[in-house]
Amino acid sequence: MAEYKNRIAVDIYDQQYTLVGAENPEHMRYVARLVDEKIREIGVRNAGLDTTRKAVLAAVNVMDDYVKLQEKYDSAIQELEQKGN
Amino acid sequence: MAEYKNRIAVDIYDQQYTLVGAENPEHMRYVARLVDEKIREIGVRNAGLDTTRKAVLAAVNVMDDYVKLQEKYDSAIQELEQKGN
Repeated sequence: MAEYKNRIAVDIYDQQYTLVGAENPEHMRYVARLVDEKIREIGVRNAGLDTTRKAVLAAVNVMDDYVKLQEKYDSAIQELEQKGN
Repeated sequence: MAEYKNRIAVDIYDQQYTLVGAENPEHMRYVARLVDEKIREIGVRNAGLDTTRKAVLAAVNVMDDYVKLQEKYDSAIQELEQKGN
């Protein structure tokens, strides 16, 4: 089956990136904006860091949120299963 | 109320970072390892990119996963509310 992929250009921290994905362009632009905001937020608190370190810390931040949300999601699913149909 | 924070040193993509957070060190090390893996995974597919761009794309990747998981979580919570107590 053919897989249709969108290629879109986005700006993140004043650099252009080409994102490739099956998601719609709005979603991809939204995700890029959130990452841009996160890197800038880290930049404000750590002005001395170079861009690589800011980007890595942004990734750490988001991964931390992801792992915590995954735990909450797993609990919600477990609760749903206990309630049955 | 005093806020107790842990400072731990982690290696991500062969650089040392000091993470500061209220979470336990195991959790922080786990998150750092996931980010390290994600950057390396992107590096394998895009060997020509510099480290900053790999790190930014890793952040984009994780943010994409986060936004999708948030939608799934919201649906699960909604379903739970509909089932009542």
